[in-house]
Amino acid sequence: MFMGASTKEGHEIAVKSREIVRSLISEQIKHLKPDEQAVVERIVHSTADPEYAELTKISENFLEESLKSIKGNGDILTDIKMVKVGITSYPGKVKCYIDHPLAYKIAREREITRAAAAMEVALKEGFHGMVVIGNSPTSLMKVIELQEQHPDRIRSVVGVPVGFVGAAESKKSLQETSIPYLITEGPKGGTPVAVAATNALINLSKE
Amino acid sequence: MFMGASTKEGHEIAVKSREIVRSLISEQIKHLKPDEQAVVERIVHSTADPEYAELTKISENFLEESLKSIKGNGDILTDIKMVKVGITSYPGKVKCYIDHPLAYKIAREREITRAAAAMEVALKEGFHGMVVIGNSPTSLMKVIELQEQHPDRIRSVVGVPVGFVGAAESKKSLQETSIPYLITEGPKGGTPVAVAATNALINLSKE
Repeated sequence: MFMGASTKEGHEIAVKSREIVRSLISEQIKHLKPDEQAVVERIVHSTADPEYAELTKISENFLEESLKSIKGNGDILTDIKMVKVGITSYPGKVKCYIDHPLAYKIAREREITRAAAAMEVALKEGFHGMVVIGNSPTSLMKVIELQEQHPDRIRSVVGVPVGFVGAAESKKSLQETSIPYLITEGPKGGTPVAVAATNALINLSKE
Repeated sequence: MFMGASTKEGHEIAVKSREIVRSLISEQIKHLKPDEQAVVERIVHSTADPEYAELTKISENFLEESLKSIKGNGDILTDIKMVKVGITSYPGKVKCYIDHPLAYKIAREREITRAAAAMEVALKEGFHGMVVIGNSPTSLMKVIELQEQHPDRIRSVVGVPVGFVGAAESKKSLQETSIPYLITEGPKGGTPVAVAATNALINLSKE
Protein backbone atom coordinates (compact mmCIF):
# COMPACT_ATOMS: atom_id res chain seq x y z
CA MET A 1 0.00 0.00 0.00
CA PHE A 2 1.43 3.37 -1.03
CA MET A 3 -0.17 6.50 0.51
CA GLY A 4 -3.46 4.72 1.02
CA ALA A 5 -3.77 3.33 -2.51
CA SER A 6 -4.95 -0.27 -2.83
CA THR A 7 -5.60 -0.50 -6.59
CA LYS A 8 -3.62 0.26 -9.75
CA GLU A 9 -5.53 3.47 -10.46
CA GLY A 10 -5.21 4.54 -6.83
CA HIS A 11 -1.48 3.86 -6.95
CA GLU A 12 -0.99 5.95 -10.10
CA ILE A 13 -2.86 8.86 -8.51
CA ALA A 14 -0.73 8.60 -5.35
CA VAL A 15 2.54 8.61 -7.34
CA LYS A 16 1.53 11.72 -9.32
CA SER A 17 0.32 13.39 -6.15
CA ARG A 18 3.64 12.78 -4.39
CA GLU A 19 5.49 14.46 -7.25
CA ILE A 20 3.23 17.51 -6.96
CA VAL A 21 3.52 17.61 -3.16
CA ARG A 22 7.32 17.49 -3.39
CA SER A 23 7.43 20.26 -5.97
CA LEU A 24 5.29 22.41 -3.64
CA ILE A 25 6.92 21.88 -0.25
CA SER A 26 10.40 20.36 -0.63
CA GLU A 27 12.10 23.67 0.18
CA GLN A 28 10.04 24.22 3.33
CA ILE A 29 10.71 20.76 4.75
CA LYS A 30 14.35 20.26 3.76
CA HIS A 31 15.53 20.94 7.34
CA LEU A 32 13.53 17.92 8.60
CA LYS A 33 14.77 14.34 8.93
CA PRO A 34 13.70 12.00 6.06
CA ASP A 35 11.05 10.22 8.21
CA GLU A 36 9.64 13.56 9.34
CA GLN A 37 9.53 14.71 5.73
CA ALA A 38 7.54 11.59 4.83
CA VAL A 39 4.96 12.39 7.52
CA VAL A 40 4.55 16.02 6.43
CA GLU A 41 4.32 14.98 2.77
CA ARG A 42 1.53 12.58 3.64
CA ILE A 43 -0.35 15.35 5.50
CA VAL A 44 -0.10 17.71 2.51
CA HIS A 45 -1.08 14.88 0.13
CA SER A 46 -4.19 14.12 2.19
CA THR A 47 -5.34 17.71 2.70
CA ALA A 48 -4.15 19.22 -0.61
CA ASP A 49 -3.14 22.12 1.61
CA PRO A 50 0.56 23.08 1.36
CA GLU A 51 0.16 25.40 4.36
CA TYR A 52 0.60 22.32 6.57
CA ALA A 53 4.29 22.21 5.60
CA GLU A 54 4.67 25.39 7.66
CA LEU A 55 2.12 24.62 10.38
CA THR A 56 3.30 21.13 11.30
CA LYS A 57 5.76 21.06 14.21
CA ILE A 58 7.39 17.83 15.36
CA SER A 59 9.31 17.42 18.60
CA GLU A 60 12.85 16.03 18.53
CA ASN A 61 11.85 12.65 19.97
CA PHE A 62 8.41 12.22 18.38
CA LEU A 63 9.35 9.94 15.47
CA GLU A 64 11.52 7.65 17.57
CA GLU A 65 8.99 7.28 20.42
CA SER A 66 6.01 6.86 18.10
CA LEU A 67 7.75 4.25 15.97
CA LYS A 68 8.80 2.34 19.09
CA SER A 69 5.18 2.29 20.29
CA ILE A 70 3.85 1.26 16.87
CA LYS A 71 6.49 -1.41 16.27
CA GLY A 72 5.53 -2.91 19.64
CA ASN A 73 1.86 -2.89 18.60
CA GLY A 74 1.05 -0.37 21.35
CA ASP A 75 -2.48 0.99 21.45
CA ILE A 76 -3.52 3.92 19.31
CA LEU A 77 -6.16 6.01 21.11
CA THR A 78 -8.26 8.46 19.07
CA ASP A 79 -10.57 11.22 20.25
CA ILE A 80 -13.37 10.55 17.74
CA LYS A 81 -14.56 7.73 15.50
CA MET A 82 -13.74 9.55 12.26
CA VAL A 83 -10.07 9.31 13.20
CA LYS A 84 -10.35 5.68 14.29
CA VAL A 85 -11.89 4.41 11.03
CA GLY A 86 -9.28 6.26 8.98
CA ILE A 87 -6.41 4.38 10.61
CA THR A 88 -6.10 1.29 8.47
CA SER A 89 -3.60 -1.57 8.35
CA TYR A 90 -2.55 -1.40 11.99
CA PRO A 91 -1.95 -4.79 13.61
CA GLY A 92 -2.33 -3.32 17.12
CA LYS A 93 -5.53 -1.97 18.66
CA VAL A 94 -7.08 1.34 17.63
CA LYS A 95 -9.27 2.49 20.51
CA CYS A 96 -11.94 5.17 20.88
CA TYR A 97 -14.16 5.52 23.97
CA ILE A 98 -16.39 8.43 22.98
CA ASP A 99 -19.42 6.10 22.82
CA HIS A 100 -18.57 4.29 26.07
CA PRO A 101 -21.35 4.56 28.71
CA LEU A 102 -18.83 5.85 31.25
CA ALA A 103 -17.82 8.69 28.87
CA TYR A 104 -21.47 9.77 28.74
CA LYS A 105 -21.72 9.56 32.54
CA ILE A 106 -18.52 11.54 33.28
CA ALA A 107 -19.40 14.17 30.66
CA ARG A 108 -22.88 14.67 32.12
CA GLU A 109 -21.82 14.73 35.75
CA ARG A 110 -18.88 17.09 35.35
CA GLU A 111 -20.20 19.09 32.40
CA ILE A 112 -17.14 18.38 30.27
CA THR A 113 -17.09 17.20 26.65
CA ARG A 114 -17.51 13.51 25.89
CA ALA A 115 -14.26 13.53 23.92
CA ALA A 116 -12.43 14.69 27.07
CA ALA A 117 -14.25 12.22 29.31
CA ALA A 118 -13.32 9.43 26.85
CA MET A 119 -9.61 10.01 27.57
CA GLU A 120 -10.19 9.25 31.27
CA VAL A 121 -12.11 6.11 30.31
CA ALA A 122 -9.20 5.00 28.10
CA LEU A 123 -6.70 5.22 30.96
CA LYS A 124 -9.09 3.36 33.27
CA GLU A 125 -9.41 0.66 30.59
CA GLY A 126 -5.66 0.09 30.39
CA PHE A 127 -4.59 2.24 27.43
CA HIS A 128 -0.85 2.27 26.73
CA GLY A 129 0.59 3.77 23.56
CA MET A 130 0.14 6.71 21.19
CA VAL A 131 -2.71 9.24 21.41
CA VAL A 132 -4.16 10.78 18.24
CA ILE A 133 -6.38 13.86 18.68
CA GLY A 134 -7.87 15.06 15.39
CA ASN A 135 -10.79 17.10 16.55
CA SER A 136 -11.24 18.07 20.18
CA PRO A 137 -9.12 20.67 22.05
CA THR A 138 -10.73 19.65 25.36
CA SER A 139 -9.64 16.09 24.71
CA LEU A 140 -6.04 17.20 24.16
CA MET A 141 -6.08 19.29 27.37
CA LYS A 142 -7.34 16.20 29.22
CA VAL A 143 -4.48 14.10 27.81
CA ILE A 144 -1.95 16.64 29.09
CA GLU A 145 -3.59 16.48 32.54
CA LEU A 146 -3.66 12.68 32.55
CA GLN A 147 -0.05 12.38 31.43
CA GLU A 148 1.07 13.89 34.73
CA GLN A 149 -0.64 11.02 36.56
CA HIS A 150 0.45 8.31 34.11
CA PRO A 151 3.76 9.48 32.65
CA ASP A 152 4.65 5.99 31.37
CA ARG A 153 1.46 5.18 29.48
CA ILE A 154 1.22 8.03 27.00
CA ARG A 155 4.16 7.46 24.66
CA SER A 156 3.52 10.23 22.15
CA VAL A 157 0.70 12.48 20.94
CA VAL A 158 -0.44 13.50 17.46
CA GLY A 159 -2.25 16.63 18.62
CA VAL A 160 -4.02 18.33 15.74
CA PRO A 161 -7.41 19.47 17.07
CA VAL A 162 -9.19 22.00 14.90
CA GLY A 163 -11.27 25.08 15.59
CA PHE A 164 -11.31 28.74 16.47
CA VAL A 165 -11.92 28.17 20.19
CA GLY A 166 -9.21 26.50 22.24
CA ALA A 167 -7.48 24.47 19.54
CA ALA A 168 -4.41 26.68 19.08
CA GLU A 169 -4.05 27.06 22.85
CA SER A 170 -4.32 23.31 23.50
CA LYS A 171 -1.57 22.60 20.98
CA LYS A 172 0.66 25.26 22.52
CA SER A 173 0.10 23.63 25.92
CA LEU A 174 1.15 20.25 24.51
CA GLN A 175 4.38 21.79 23.22
CA GLU A 176 5.17 22.96 26.74
CA THR A 177 5.08 19.41 28.15
CA SER A 178 7.71 16.69 27.90
CA ILE A 179 5.39 14.52 25.77
CA PRO A 180 6.79 13.72 22.30
CA TYR A 181 4.40 15.55 19.93
CA LEU A 182 3.33 16.37 16.42
CA ILE A 183 1.09 19.44 16.21
CA THR A 184 -0.24 21.95 13.69
CA GLU A 185 0.12 25.54 14.86
CA GLY A 186 -2.98 27.74 14.99
CA PRO A 187 -6.67 26.84 14.58
CA LYS A 188 -6.19 24.49 11.61
CA GLY A 189 -5.81 20.72 11.83
CA GLY A 190 -8.45 18.03 11.84
CA THR A 191 -9.21 14.40 11.23
CA PRO A 192 -7.47 14.08 7.82
CA VAL A 193 -4.28 15.52 9.30
CA ALA A 194 -4.46 13.14 12.26
CA VAL A 195 -5.14 10.15 10.04
CA ALA A 196 -2.46 11.06 7.50
CA ALA A 197 0.22 11.47 10.17
CA THR A 198 -0.71 8.21 11.88
CA ASN A 199 -0.89 6.16 8.68
CA ALA A 200 2.46 7.61 7.60
CA LEU A 201 3.97 6.44 10.91
CA ILE A 202 2.45 2.97 10.47
CA ASN A 203 3.98 2.77 6.98
CA LEU A 204 7.38 3.90 8.29
CA SER A 205 7.24 1.22 11.00
CA LYS A 206 7.06 -1.44 8.29
CA GLU A 207 10.11 -0.23 6.36
CA MET B 1 -27.63 19.65 19.14
CA PHE B 2 -25.92 22.83 17.93
CA MET B 3 -22.99 22.47 15.50
CA GLY B 4 -22.18 19.01 16.77
CA ALA B 5 -22.14 19.90 20.47
CA SER B 6 -23.81 17.46 22.84
CA THR B 7 -22.64 18.80 26.23
CA LYS B 8 -22.68 22.19 27.97
CA GLU B 9 -18.96 22.78 27.40
CA GLY B 10 -19.27 21.69 23.77
CA HIS B 11 -22.22 24.03 23.31
CA GLU B 12 -20.33 27.02 24.72
CA ILE B 13 -17.40 26.34 22.39
CA ALA B 14 -19.77 26.10 19.41
CA VAL B 15 -21.47 29.41 20.26
CA LYS B 16 -18.13 31.25 20.55
CA SER B 17 -16.91 29.60 17.37
CA ARG B 18 -19.98 30.74 15.44
CA GLU B 19 -19.33 34.33 16.47
CA ILE B 20 -15.75 34.10 15.24
CA VAL B 21 -16.79 32.41 11.98
CA ARG B 22 -19.36 35.14 11.32
CA SER B 23 -16.84 37.89 12.00
CA LEU B 24 -14.48 36.26 9.51
CA ILE B 25 -16.75 35.40 6.58
CA SER B 26 -20.05 37.30 6.83
CA GLU B 27 -19.05 39.72 4.04
CA GLN B 28 -18.06 36.91 1.69
CA ILE B 29 -21.29 34.96 2.12
CA LYS B 30 -23.82 37.79 2.32
CA HIS B 31 -25.00 37.11 -1.26
CA LEU B 32 -26.10 33.58 -0.26
CA LYS B 33 -29.54 32.55 1.01
CA PRO B 34 -29.76 32.08 4.83
CA ASP B 35 -29.78 28.26 4.60
CA GLU B 36 -26.76 28.32 2.30
CA GLN B 37 -24.99 30.66 4.72
CA ALA B 38 -25.65 28.19 7.55
CA VAL B 39 -24.03 25.39 5.53
CA VAL B 40 -20.93 27.45 4.66
CA GLU B 41 -20.60 28.65 8.27
CA ARG B 42 -20.64 25.06 9.47
CA ILE B 43 -17.90 24.15 6.97
CA VAL B 44 -15.68 27.01 8.16
CA HIS B 45 -16.43 26.16 11.80
CA SER B 46 -15.39 22.53 11.24
CA THR B 47 -12.22 23.21 9.25
CA ALA B 48 -11.15 26.49 10.92
CA ASP B 49 -10.32 27.49 7.36
CA PRO B 50 -12.06 30.69 6.19
CA GLU B 51 -10.90 30.02 2.63
CA TYR B 52 -13.89 27.68 2.27
CA ALA B 53 -16.20 30.72 2.23
CA GLU B 54 -14.72 31.50 -1.19
CA LEU B 55 -14.21 27.93 -2.42
CA THR B 56 -17.68 26.57 -1.66
CA LYS B 57 -20.08 26.77 -4.61
CA ILE B 58 -23.72 25.75 -4.29
CA SER B 59 -26.07 25.24 -7.22
CA GLU B 60 -29.40 27.08 -7.30
CA ASN B 61 -31.48 23.97 -6.52
CA PHE B 62 -29.09 22.17 -4.15
CA LEU B 63 -30.61 23.19 -0.81
CA GLU B 64 -34.18 22.52 -1.90
CA GLU B 65 -33.45 19.10 -3.42
CA SER B 66 -31.16 17.98 -0.58
CA LEU B 67 -33.66 19.01 2.09
CA LYS B 68 -36.47 17.20 0.23
CA SER B 69 -34.37 14.03 0.15
CA ILE B 70 -33.37 14.33 3.81
CA LYS B 71 -36.87 15.18 5.04
CA GLY B 72 -38.11 12.05 3.26
CA ASN B 73 -35.38 10.01 4.99
CA GLY B 74 -33.75 9.27 1.63
CA ASP B 75 -30.45 7.39 1.69
CA ILE B 76 -27.17 9.21 2.22
CA LEU B 77 -24.39 7.47 0.29
CA THR B 78 -20.76 8.22 1.22
CA ASP B 79 -17.56 7.33 -0.62
CA ILE B 80 -15.55 6.32 2.47
CA LYS B 81 -16.20 5.23 6.04
CA MET B 82 -14.67 8.35 7.60
CA VAL B 83 -17.51 10.35 6.07
CA LYS B 84 -20.14 7.82 7.08
CA VAL B 85 -19.23 7.78 10.79
CA GLY B 86 -19.16 11.58 10.90
CA ILE B 87 -22.81 11.84 9.84
CA THR B 88 -24.67 11.63 13.12
CA SER B 89 -28.31 12.08 14.08
CA TYR B 90 -29.78 11.03 10.73
CA PRO B 91 -32.95 8.95 11.01
CA GLY B 92 -32.52 7.59 7.45
CA LYS B 93 -29.82 5.21 6.24
CA VAL B 94 -26.20 6.29 5.78
CA LYS B 95 -24.62 3.84 3.34
CA CYS B 96 -21.04 3.08 2.29
CA TYR B 97 -20.09 0.13 0.09
CA ILE B 98 -16.30 0.48 -0.04
CA ASP B 99 -15.88 -2.73 2.00
CA HIS B 100 -18.53 -4.68 0.05
CA PRO B 101 -17.12 -7.85 -1.62
CA LEU B 102 -18.51 -6.73 -4.97
CA ALA B 103 -16.62 -3.43 -4.70
CA TYR B 104 -13.38 -5.40 -4.28
CA LYS B 105 -14.30 -7.61 -7.25
CA ILE B 106 -15.22 -4.77 -9.62
CA ALA B 107 -12.12 -2.76 -8.60
CA ARG B 108 -9.82 -5.71 -9.24
CA GLU B 109 -11.38 -6.79 -12.53
CA ARG B 110 -11.57 -3.34 -14.11
CA GLU B 111 -8.56 -1.78 -12.37
CA ILE B 112 -10.58 1.10 -10.98
CA THR B 113 -10.57 2.41 -7.41
CA ARG B 114 -12.70 0.69 -4.79
CA ALA B 115 -14.37 4.00 -3.94
CA ALA B 116 -15.55 4.25 -7.57
CA ALA B 117 -16.62 0.60 -7.72
CA ALA B 118 -18.59 1.15 -4.49
CA MET B 119 -20.84 3.68 -6.27
CA GLU B 120 -21.89 0.99 -8.79
CA VAL B 121 -22.58 -1.40 -5.94
CA ALA B 122 -24.77 1.23 -4.24
CA LEU B 123 -26.97 1.65 -7.31
CA LYS B 124 -27.27 -2.14 -7.68
CA GLU B 125 -28.28 -2.33 -4.01
CA GLY B 126 -31.13 0.14 -4.46
CA PHE B 127 -29.61 3.46 -3.38
CA HIS B 128 -31.93 6.48 -3.70
CA GLY B 129 -31.05 9.84 -2.20
CA MET B 130 -28.12 12.19 -1.66
CA VAL B 131 -24.50 11.32 -2.43
CA VAL B 132 -21.66 12.68 -0.26
CA ILE B 133 -18.13 12.40 -1.67
CA GLY B 134 -15.49 13.62 0.76
CA ASN B 135 -12.39 11.97 -0.53
CA SER B 136 -12.29 10.28 -3.90
CA PRO B 137 -12.32 12.10 -7.28
CA THR B 138 -12.77 8.77 -9.11
CA SER B 139 -15.85 8.11 -7.01
CA LEU B 140 -17.33 11.46 -8.00
CA MET B 141 -16.62 10.81 -11.71
CA LYS B 142 -18.40 7.47 -11.33
CA VAL B 143 -21.45 9.18 -9.78
CA ILE B 144 -21.65 11.56 -12.75
CA GLU B 145 -21.52 8.57 -15.13
CA LEU B 146 -24.15 6.63 -13.15
CA GLN B 147 -26.49 9.60 -12.94
CA GLU B 148 -26.98 9.44 -16.72
CA GLN B 149 -28.32 5.89 -16.34
CA HIS B 150 -30.34 6.58 -13.18
CA PRO B 151 -31.39 10.22 -13.40
CA ASP B 152 -34.12 9.79 -10.78
CA ARG B 153 -32.10 8.13 -8.03
CA ILE B 154 -29.32 10.63 -7.37
CA ARG B 155 -31.12 13.62 -5.85
CA SER B 156 -28.13 15.82 -5.05
CA VAL B 157 -24.38 15.57 -4.54
CA VAL B 158 -22.05 17.03 -1.92
CA GLY B 159 -18.91 16.71 -4.06
CA VAL B 160 -15.83 17.78 -2.11
CA PRO B 161 -13.09 15.27 -2.97
CA VAL B 162 -9.61 16.36 -2.06
CA GLY B 163 -6.21 16.05 -3.72
CA PHE B 164 -3.82 17.37 -6.31
CA VAL B 165 -4.71 14.76 -8.93
CA GLY B 166 -8.20 14.79 -10.42
CA ALA B 167 -10.13 16.39 -7.56
CA ALA B 168 -10.52 19.89 -9.06
CA GLU B 169 -11.41 18.39 -12.45
CA SER B 170 -14.01 16.03 -10.99
CA LYS B 171 -15.74 18.91 -9.20
CA LYS B 172 -15.74 20.98 -12.39
CA SER B 173 -17.33 18.05 -14.21
CA LEU B 174 -20.07 17.86 -11.58
CA GLN B 175 -20.83 21.55 -12.08
CA GLU B 176 -21.40 20.88 -15.79
CA THR B 177 -24.17 18.35 -15.10
CA SER B 178 -27.80 18.98 -14.12
CA ILE B 179 -27.24 17.38 -10.69
CA PRO B 180 -27.89 19.75 -7.75
CA TYR B 181 -24.44 20.19 -6.17
CA LEU B 182 -22.29 21.63 -3.44
CA ILE B 183 -18.58 21.68 -4.31
CA THR B 184 -15.32 23.25 -3.19
CA GLU B 185 -13.31 24.66 -6.08
CA GLY B 186 -9.72 23.49 -6.59
CA PRO B 187 -7.78 20.68 -4.89
CA LYS B 188 -9.05 21.37 -1.36
CA GLY B 189 -12.01 19.69 0.32
CA GLY B 190 -12.15 16.48 2.31
CA THR B 191 -14.05 14.48 4.87
CA PRO B 192 -14.60 17.30 7.43
CA VAL B 193 -16.08 19.51 4.69
CA ALA B 194 -18.36 16.68 3.51
CA VAL B 195 -19.47 15.86 7.05
CA ALA B 196 -20.00 19.51 8.03
CA ALA B 197 -22.15 20.22 4.96
CA THR B 198 -24.25 17.09 5.47
CA ASN B 199 -24.77 17.60 9.20
CA ALA B 200 -25.74 21.23 8.53
CA LEU B 201 -28.38 20.02 6.04
CA ILE B 202 -29.70 17.48 8.55
CA ASN B 203 -30.00 20.24 11.17
CA LEU B 204 -31.79 22.52 8.69
CA SER B 205 -34.24 19.72 7.85
CA LYS B 206 -35.33 19.67 11.49
CA GLU B 207 -36.06 23.40 11.73
